[in-house]
Amino acid sequence: MSEILKGAAIIGQSGGPSSVINASAYGAIKTALENENITRVLGALNGIKGILDDNIIDMGKEDPAELAHMKYTPSSALGSCRYKLKSAEEDETDYKRILEIFKKYNIRYFFYNGGNDSMDTCNKVSKYLLAHDYPCRVMGIPKTIDNDLAGTDHCPGYGSAAKYIATSVMEIYHDAHVYDTGMVTIIECMGRHAGWLTAAAALANTKGCGADLIYLPEVDFDMDSFLASVKDIYAKTKKCIVVVSEGIHDKDGRFITEYGSDLAQTKDSFGHAQLGGLASFLANVVKKETGAKVRGIELSLLQRCAAHCASQTDIEESFSAGAAAVTNAVAGVTDKMVGFERAYVDGKYVCNIKLFNLDIVANTEKKVPREWINAAGNGIEQGFIDYALPLIQGETKLEKEDSLPRFVHLAKVRA
Amino acid sequence: MSEILKGAAIIGQSGGPSSVINASAYGAIKTALENENITRVLGALNGIKGILDDNIIDMGKEDPAELAHMKYTPSSALGSCRYKLKSAEEDETDYKRILEIFKKYNIRYFFYNGGNDSMDTCNKVSKYLLAHDYPCRVMGIPKTIDNDLAGTDHCPGYGSAAKYIATSVMEIYHDAHVYDTGMVTIIECMGRHAGWLTAAAALANTKGCGADLIYLPEVDFDMDSFLASVKDIYAKTKKCIVVVSEGIHDKDGRFITEYGSDLAQTKDSFGHAQLGGLASFLANVVKKETGAKVRGIELSLLQRCAAHCASQTDIEESFSAGAAAVTNAVAGVTDKMVGFERAYVDGKYVCNIKLFNLDIVANTEKKVPREWINAAGNGIEQGFIDYALPLIQGETKLEKEDSLPRFVHLAKVRA
Repeated sequence: MSEILKGAAIIGQSGGPSSVINASAYGAIKTALENENITRVLGALNGIKGILDDNIIDMGKEDPAELAHMKYTPSSALGSCRYKLKSAEEDETDYKRILEIFKKYNIRYFFYNGGNDSMDTCNKVSKYLLAHDYPCRVMGIPKTIDNDLAGTDHCPGYGSAAKYIATSVMEIYHDAHVYDTGMVTIIECMGRHAGWLTAAAALANTKGCGADLIYLPEVDFDMDSFLASVKDIYAKTKKCIVVVSEGIHDKDGRFITEYGSDLAQTKDSFGHAQLGGLASFLANVVKKETGAKVRGIELSLLQRCAAHCASQTDIEESFSAGAAAVTNAVAGVTDKMVGFERAYVDGKYVCNIKLFNLDIVANTEKKVPREWINAAGNGIEQGFIDYALPLIQGETKLEKEDSLPRFVHLAKVRA
Repeated sequence: MSEILKGAAIIGQSGGPSSVINASAYGAIKTALENENITRVLGALNGIKGILDDNIIDMGKEDPAELAHMKYTPSSALGSCRYKLKSAEEDETDYKRILEIFKKYNIRYFFYNGGNDSMDTCNKVSKYLLAHDYPCRVMGIPKTIDNDLAGTDHCPGYGSAAKYIATSVMEIYHDAHVYDTGMVTIIECMGRHAGWLTAAAALANTKGCGADLIYLPEVDFDMDSFLASVKDIYAKTKKCIVVVSEGIHDKDGRFITEYGSDLAQTKDSFGHAQLGGLASFLANVVKKETGAKVRGIELSLLQRCAAHCASQTDIEESFSAGAAAVTNAVAGVTDKMVGFERAYVDGKYVCNIKLFNLDIVANTEKKVPREWINAAGNGIEQGFIDYALPLIQGETKLEKEDSLPRFVHLAKVRA
């Protein structure tokens, strides 16, 4: 049995928001508040930046009934950041500061809730603390609508985003089919390098009102064959619904958004190109080539924050990931990411917690398997449907007030 | 008591879709199917065009259990059109054809479900039939997310669109506030001449997570004062959420979208300019002027078709409008639009059916009263909140299948 470690716990959130990142954070906070080895539960405002700036709140000072609304509130209630830690060898400044703050509050548990980059942060902090003989258990709690973390069967946040996308595609399908005149609709989903979100449009197809063509970044995009496919479908049915990932690129790796954009690509602090505007660009190309009426729709931020349409399965799994991070850490586990393993019991989907090494997870991207994409590279196979459908099940138990979402209001009392 | 009129009823849908236009149509169809004076219930595919083309289905041949899903299915299940009838004096061709089809099926009840233009169609058809001594009762069943029909307190479709907009603004607010870095968000809502949809963003403000600035077409838009307001709010809070109507224009009546667009404005068959792209345009202007990170979001089609987020109040009222059209017509009423009158019983909102003359309704647009917009023209007053809040109440009873919407599948058996 592992040594008992008593002290404070701190949780931070990082990276882009999701509908359920707070469900995970709440799972960790609630479980930590109830644990006798954890003397105090702290929240780092804006992720690792909150630790560096000593911008820290006391989660124990929040009203428990109010705090419970966190489970259904989208985006990062503690605030997020996109702050990339340099390696300690390169620059030790941040690490020294983190250790200083951890000592100040006697922090012995560090939970970090985010995507690939956040797991990298966990990994670096964990290694530094270990090298400096500071006992602290570090656990990564994953979050990413992109569903691209290695190891885990799927990521908290994906199911809700997938549900929103499938639902929206079904609704747009109905809208696009009301007139008997021709219409091409191009819907743009998020996803730089992995097409999980875009593939979710195929769930709408199982209900007979989905996309005619789906393009993921996993397959090189060819403008000519795209246009030929659109023309072909349009000629037959006078309608064509296309769903594309923002990250589609040609065989030379050039993003299709760059085709039409003379604007310099701005980059975020991780060096990712800022994409967007693809739907409008493709709509213009199709309009020019076909003369059809074309509409470009960018699902934009709503696919990652539309908590009103979240999957209750995703919410409960996200909560359990946060809770498992705490129970495992208290039991002696460190330097791991909490992930999911899928099982089928009597044919029914079951999601089990599984721990993954942080260094395997950090900075690796899981793509949609090629066999789940059709041979032509413009559609999705049944394998994906079987994978994704269980993840979107169940309606959110989000409370309403005046029929509008009742999101959390944190008091944010400084520690 | 009015003369008993026996014969077939036909219903058609016209204009842009809404989340609840089918709830109205279902209200009319179900009530007509149950009425002994109505010998047969027909559906015109793609509105008045379906009548002209003898493209007509028999609603009695639909499975009643399946048909019931119409109440929760967005867009026009019978198909829509944007076909403007010329006046009979100008060209009688269409009217002769309509009369011919009405005689063929012994149609004695004509229900037309749509917006301003549809009420105009009703009015013209009704007058022509009357002038040609063909007894037929004509009733308009309103629908428009734009909420701009004269007379009626509000329009079926508005409450659901308003609920979607308010909910989405609340969610985008959370997304836009996760980083401690600066961010301006510009959200574009539909609404050419009336700002009802855009004003709905103010409902989010009642929950503390709404818009900083709201611009409706009812007030002339001034780019300089807009930029000054954004800069002022951004300087104080590093965040600014702006919601604009697609139809905002300057004091000379020029649409702001036209400022940035060198593209020739295409026009639809009613001569309306096709707008869009305003959010991106304003985002670019703000980015240039402030250097801030700016995101433009167009709520696009989803505000009119997101049935999963519809208001049950809107659904029930829409159904009752369709039902009332039938019961009134059977009782002898003709040449009217079914509308709503608001009452408060013991302080509780109640919606009563009221009939309006078609010629008053047709081609008149109701705007947001100036006193519901703040003096600066960039925000919304409590009067609007009191008006709109009752309209968004109640969660849709839309059934789910695999946690995705269960929309109607009509058999569409030809008459």
